[in-house]
Amino acid sequence: MRIVDIRDTVVPIKSDIRNSYIDFSQMTVSVLALVTDMVRDGKPMIGYGFNSNGRYAPSGILRDRFLPRLKAAPPESLLDETGENLDPHRIWAVVMRNEKPGGHGERSVAVGVLDMAVWDAVAKIAGLPLYRLLANRYRGGRFDAKVFVYAAGGYYYPNKDLSALQDEMRSYLALGYSVVKMKIGGAPLSEDLRRIEAVLKILKTPDQLAVDANGRFDLDTALAYARALAPYGLRWYEEPGDPLDFELQAKLAEHYSGPMATGENLFSLQDARNLIRYAGLRRDRDVLQFDCALSYGLVEYLRILEMLTEYGWSPTRCIPHGGHQMSLNIAAGLGLGGNESYPGVFQPFGGFADGIAVEDSYVGLPQLPGIGFEAKKNLYRVMKELAG
Amino acid sequence: MRIVDIRDTVVPIKSDIRNSYIDFSQMTVSVLALVTDMVRDGKPMIGYGFNSNGRYAPSGILRDRFLPRLKAAPPESLLDETGENLDPHRIWAVVMRNEKPGGHGERSVAVGVLDMAVWDAVAKIAGLPLYRLLANRYRGGRFDAKVFVYAAGGYYYPNKDLSALQDEMRSYLALGYSVVKMKIGGAPLSEDLRRIEAVLKILKTPDQLAVDANGRFDLDTALAYARALAPYGLRWYEEPGDPLDFELQAKLAEHYSGPMATGENLFSLQDARNLIRYAGLRRDRDVLQFDCALSYGLVEYLRILEMLTEYGWSPTRCIPHGGHQMSLNIAAGLGLGGNESYPGVFQPFGGFADGIAVEDSYVGLPQLPGIGFEAKKNLYRVMKELAG
Repeated sequence: MRIVDIRDTVVPIKSDIRNSYIDFSQMTVSVLALVTDMVRDGKPMIGYGFNSNGRYAPSGILRDRFLPRLKAAPPESLLDETGENLDPHRIWAVVMRNEKPGGHGERSVAVGVLDMAVWDAVAKIAGLPLYRLLANRYRGGRFDAKVFVYAAGGYYYPNKDLSALQDEMRSYLALGYSVVKMKIGGAPLSEDLRRIEAVLKILKTPDQLAVDANGRFDLDTALAYARALAPYGLRWYEEPGDPLDFELQAKLAEHYSGPMATGENLFSLQDARNLIRYAGLRRDRDVLQFDCALSYGLVEYLRILEMLTEYGWSPTRCIPHGGHQMSLNIAAGLGLGGNESYPGVFQPFGGFADGIAVEDSYVGLPQLPGIGFEAKKNLYRVMKELAG
Repeated sequence: MRIVDIRDTVVPIKSDIRNSYIDFSQMTVSVLALVTDMVRDGKPMIGYGFNSNGRYAPSGILRDRFLPRLKAAPPESLLDETGENLDPHRIWAVVMRNEKPGGHGERSVAVGVLDMAVWDAVAKIAGLPLYRLLANRYRGGRFDAKVFVYAAGGYYYPNKDLSALQDEMRSYLALGYSVVKMKIGGAPLSEDLRRIEAVLKILKTPDQLAVDANGRFDLDTALAYARALAPYGLRWYEEPGDPLDFELQAKLAEHYSGPMATGENLFSLQDARNLIRYAGLRRDRDVLQFDCALSYGLVEYLRILEMLTEYGWSPTRCIPHGGHQMSLNIAAGLGLGGNESYPGVFQPFGGFADGIAVEDSYVGLPQLPGIGFEAKKNLYRVMKELAG
């Protein structure tokens, strides 16, 4: 078998939302189709991938470096030992050849796009949903039929008042989510507290609400928020400081006993390991949000999980950023603690299979071979158009 | 005043050299010309920039994000308070708008290219060599008329034997360098020791030789090399492990009392700060090699120098990677400890002004306004062609 064509395109995921750091009006996504010569039901088997939100389409890197390297590789060097399927690890090594260590950004996103397409193809060729394939390969066949998901929203829209924020959160509850997340740090503390209290009013318990500062705070601000947030007993307090300021995170942990979450802006094994080594995170409560679609893909994510095991961390502490089906499969297949979800935004890339309802913040997966894109109509439309 | 045109191109810097990590046969560089409406001697003043070697041309990021943002900005928002020159800090903030924190790779190179062109233009408009402008702004006018430079080479060429390595090093001595650097880690330890001893034979003292492992070693290998290298008393032992493995570096420092050097693959203030916080480096002997042309430019480098001061480090501990005239100006203007030089490779980007000889490993700078590209013929030819 071999790869016969690789196509990519750039798609806007415009939105007028903003978090405390950036607005998303210019955000783009690379979509990639990896066409194989394997045929099922008369059609070629095609793997699809895209990058997660928050980082821009890495099309330049894909086109200038990774796709040429992949196309130049002898086809048999990309196959696993059976010779009947692609090997994501070997493909990873091929595209990362002649890349220096360090500098983990952008190219990590490009590999993430490609890796997603490779795993989609691998699972399709194997005739299995990806989570079943992962469970078979790495977890003795054990998988979770349902995955915890929470609804991330509560962005700062222009002119959004407290009742609009409540309405947004009510809409997530109506969709079956019992845990929701909102942004903080884009307004003064006092206003953010009013926003938090408005949302808590429509929830039963405070652990239904997580808050996300998107890396904006310095230590003093992070501490001021920590003091103000502590009495609420929230689900978690996310990314208070710069994602690489491990010292800030460690100092904050001395003053905030509630759960904290971070990691969505760390894009490599090395960065993730430094977080574990230096940030004072607590194995019994904190949440790790590394997102494979920004971070060299599942091949690197497997290395991160292995590193976590060495440091005594359970995969159940991982709830990836991104709200895409790739991480949902990883969560179900490898036993993560859950997955983010964006019911309203980042369409058509955010969200899961059509027709599988979220119930009490858990969602099932479709039984289709691959990642399940074909079960999400608005997304598959974009992919199919690319594949031609 | 305003920017009237921005042009960029991608140029190969093919070479058949390799270090222990990558080969450079496909390496590319982005070159950028920033054309202003300021005129001197009847010609528009143009700032030029390029990226340092080891990372690929960041043309996709420049074209998709940074140049459009720069072109869309109101021209007056890019000027300093006099309104008569560009403000590198404001331009930095404009191009980095809507970029999330973390993920410091590739885009850091794109900013480096642009920032170099901006400073070249700023110094030209001010009518000063960049190092004089920097000395005036940040060091009370004090500058170093000559900068320590060392010749980096000793790569693994196909079929290169010990006498060829000695000939290469002799050629650097003949050019006026008294300190040279060679690669290690691309061969077994025993062979590397033979290579080191062959080079030491043609030098007067062992502190004329530095060795560079390019981040290849795990801790055991790094320790084995440390034990074998210690008796020689070399200038420094560079980048033994992964650039982000601060723990490896710290453990190694407990076993190697000679100077060590690292930092060329850390591309942000945050990463540099983590190195200082966690890697056990020693203020009295170790060398920091951050390269602004890979790391968000001089604007970020100024932040790094400020951070170093906070942590009690002198700028004289900094000897940047890259061997380009930008860092040479920074070294002379801000009092760094020196600059790398590649007499033989990475042409036309490596090296300094024509006609200024290196003497006893020190080199002077030309008196031209700007970075001095116009005094390096083979480089200026590429730039002039781009500017049209």
